[in-house]
Amino acid sequence: MRVLVWNEGVHEANGSPPNIAEYYPEGMHGAIAAGLRRLLPDAEVSTATLADPEHGLSADVLDRTDVLLWWGHAAHERVQDAVVDRVERHVLGGMGLLVLHSGHFSKIFRRLLGTTCSLAWRNDGEQELVWTVKPSHPIAQGVPHPVVIPRQEMYGELFDIPDPDDLVFISSFAGGEVFRSGVTFTRGRGRIFYFSPGDQEYPVYHQPEIQQVLANGVRWAAPTTDRRDVPDVTNPPRQWLL
Amino acid sequence: MRVLVWNEGVHEANGSPPNIAEYYPEGMHGAIAAGLRRLLPDAEVSTATLADPEHGLSADVLDRTDVLLWWGHAAHERVQDAVVDRVERHVLGGMGLLVLHSGHFSKIFRRLLGTTCSLAWRNDGEQELVWTVKPSHPIAQGVPHPVVIPRQEMYGELFDIPDPDDLVFISSFAGGEVFRSGVTFTRGRGRIFYFSPGDQEYPVYHQPEIQQVLANGVRWAAPTTDRRDVPDVTNPPRQWLL
Amino acid sequence: MRVLVWNEGVHEANGSPPNIAEYYPEGMHGAIAAGLRRLLPDAEVSTATLADPEHGLSADVLDRTDVLLWWGHAAHERVQDAVVDRVERHVLGGMGLLVLHSGHFSKIFRRLLGTTCSLAWRNDGEQELVWTVKPSHPIAQGVPHPVVIPRQEMYGELFDIPDPDDLVFISSFAGGEVFRSGVTFTRGRGRIFYFSPGDQEYPVYHQPEIQQVLANGVRWAAPTTDRRDVPDVTNPPRQWLL
Amino acid sequence: MRVLVWNEGVHEANGSPPNIAEYYPEGMHGAIAAGLRRLLPDAEVSTATLADPEHGLSADVLDRTDVLLWWGHAAHERVQDAVVDRVERHVLGGMGLLVLHSGHFSKIFRRLLGTTCSLAWRNDGEQELVWTVKPSHPIAQGVPHPVVIPRQEMYGELFDIPDPDDLVFISSFAGGEVFRSGVTFTRGRGRIFYFSPGDQEYPVYHQPEIQQVLANGVRWAAPTTDRRDVPDVTNPPRQWLL
Repeated sequence: MRVLVWNEGVHEANGSPPNIAEYYPEGMHGAIAAGLRRLLPDAEVSTATLADPEHGLSADVLDRTDVLLWWGHAAHERVQDAVVDRVERHVLGGMGLLVLHSGHFSKIFRRLLGTTCSLAWRNDGEQELVWTVKPSHPIAQGVPHPVVIPRQEMYGELFDIPDPDDLVFISSFAGGEVFRSGVTFTRGRGRIFYFSPGDQEYPVYHQPEIQQVLANGVRWAAPTTDRRDVPDVTNPPRQWLL
Repeated sequence: MRVLVWNEGVHEANGSPPNIAEYYPEGMHGAIAAGLRRLLPDAEVSTATLADPEHGLSADVLDRTDVLLWWGHAAHERVQDAVVDRVERHVLGGMGLLVLHSGHFSKIFRRLLGTTCSLAWRNDGEQELVWTVKPSHPIAQGVPHPVVIPRQEMYGELFDIPDPDDLVFISSFAGGEVFRSGVTFTRGRGRIFYFSPGDQEYPVYHQPEIQQVLANGVRWAAPTTDRRDVPDVTNPPRQWLL
Repeated sequence: MRVLVWNEGVHEANGSPPNIAEYYPEGMHGAIAAGLRRLLPDAEVSTATLADPEHGLSADVLDRTDVLLWWGHAAHERVQDAVVDRVERHVLGGMGLLVLHSGHFSKIFRRLLGTTCSLAWRNDGEQELVWTVKPSHPIAQGVPHPVVIPRQEMYGELFDIPDPDDLVFISSFAGGEVFRSGVTFTRGRGRIFYFSPGDQEYPVYHQPEIQQVLANGVRWAAPTTDRRDVPDVTNPPRQWLL
Repeated sequence: MRVLVWNEGVHEANGSPPNIAEYYPEGMHGAIAAGLRRLLPDAEVSTATLADPEHGLSADVLDRTDVLLWWGHAAHERVQDAVVDRVERHVLGGMGLLVLHSGHFSKIFRRLLGTTCSLAWRNDGEQELVWTVKPSHPIAQGVPHPVVIPRQEMYGELFDIPDPDDLVFISSFAGGEVFRSGVTFTRGRGRIFYFSPGDQEYPVYHQPEIQQVLANGVRWAAPTTDRRDVPDVTNPPRQWLL
């Protein structure tokens, strides 16, 4: 299994917020990739950022990617449409996609979902509790109920997404808000998992439980074939089955 | 539209908790019925309790009921199986059913859902916030986001129910728990709405927003025909469409 | 309730196929509107086509539209993006949308769904049977099981759509294919119903059962408020509920 | 992975229909088990029938079962309620369950689903086509689109089941009927897959594609832990997370 962790990398490049270098000396993508390597020892995990040529998402790279993780926030609009088109085709053809935290507003997520993906937010370092509501789901395996995140940005409802295929996690925040924090979707032949915990300002991606969720998500979203097969129109003759 | 509010009525009969007579001088069913009469002036709203002959749920009564609301807690096991069978047939045949609060453990709800319907609970008079997560749903029309319930029993996940058709409301509690507090199901031709806010110890059923949810639920669950038509086996010949 | 039936009107303008003038002397939109007027006597039903200024979908017109029906086929690419943007905003804000037959490939449907919306097709005048699989759904009320369409274009699986909120109808065709022919979605605050029966070459929109489905769909998709309210980001302070 | 194929075995014992001994010399359970052994070489596959003590479903046996397959038809009522109770607890606690063909009317399936599970049927040896409608689902991997079954009993809608978690397959029959022939459910911590193709009169379970679906279903339904953990009520104190 080949996994690619994509991070715009802008917070890291700008040293903003100031503590990002302390929490994420290798960038958030580095921390996420380290967690995946620990939990998925047979996977080949690499990283890419916005600053790479073609954002590190060339046709060749995507051809060799089973599951793509996407973290973006400050630079959604700087992602080239041609690259978004390419990622979209790969997802529809079978590549798994994990969209993380502020990636809810990425071009690729909004395009695949068809809604505004807007939400309520507040950056006040609140405790987040992540509750499992579908314990039979592979993404919930081995995940505490709840996961306790000591300090985190609040994301709250209304989260403007279509009804998910599976609602796996619901979060509450100290201020009282709730959020559908772990949801799955299918688009074409591709499986999508959105998971909200994780932020540039808090060391959430170092929590082992969060790493477990991401590893579970990668395994769940991985296609069973290398072939990309975007659904297309067919025009079969009447007797084609004979 | 003919609506029947069923309440076991045991807390009221026993004067337990002590404040129930103050909050619900006409019983919880009386308060619920009053709210429905106010908001659904064209509906014919009546009530029944466990102590009535056949629990007030005779074949004749059910034949004339479009939507049944069910509140039970202390006496689930005292509901006769023959009556549960009858209610089940009516729901499968098209009668709407609203199950309220501790009715999650009623025989009828568990039988229709097929799960344990267990949950976490704590009676500590906590603030509950009821958030709308499907604003297009008729049951959410005119309902504040969130509804604030000053004091209420906590119901928390894991709520062991099948995936609902629609998840309309999620609640959070002061202690941090979350709960899928407004969910819909279909069984046979019948529509089912479970709504958790409301308890024998707190005056929740007097809140206008809660009454609005219940009235919306009744309208949503009402069948479009008087005929009860439980799905049944058929054995059509090959050419029956000719 | 104000209903707008939109048809590109290109088949009618071109007299192609030749029998279209015989089946649809007022255009398909005319036949659809006539059916709605018959079944929804309180609704105000109007029509618009691609050739109208702004395709008949100006901001003013959409402000006054509760439910929009969309028929397109030959000219999807000629629909201006600015108009599609506008329709999209209205749907996300609460306007109901019915997408008909070859409208599966319209810009608006693909954008709201996020998939290719591709399918298998064959124009061989085959019998289509439309079976109800969710009889409790308002869109299925009064609809025969099955609806028999003597001659119709075949649409078959794989229909590349996201999992619908509700699967109401499944069709079979004489050649053996099946199709999820009646499906609902929610996007933002808007309700969407896709219904495949109906074509420029067959008089399907004159069948009373098909008209019944469309009228049911319009009623189901209608918003409960005139206000358009596209979900948007909010940034509430910690204590906003106090 | 330990898999148990349960078959009532009554058709085989009675030699009815007459050709059953020819098609299924080891019983349908024997043919199903052989297919699973071929495709899941690491699984331990055993069989049991109604005539075994405790129907071969003792507490010990179920403790050691990851996925149970269930075929029943003529003797649903002869399955002891105590055994059904036991199977139900195991499913709610995490055991996977595959229900096959006429098992739709088994006590265990009806109890877990909460509906009548009724359907239309006709035994006329018709061609069945099994179409994949969710190609991203693990159960659809490697399965032709469609699977062609030359002769099979017809099962048609309305199939009175709750909305499934996932609709994977839809079948059509030569007579024109359609059927949701591959559907998944979750109950408690257990995953359930119902698959209709397969009958005592036709050699369907010898088709490699059908065997592939069953093997995929077993893999999908298998729990990730040996521990059975039926959801239960909890009463956590306010500060339990501290």
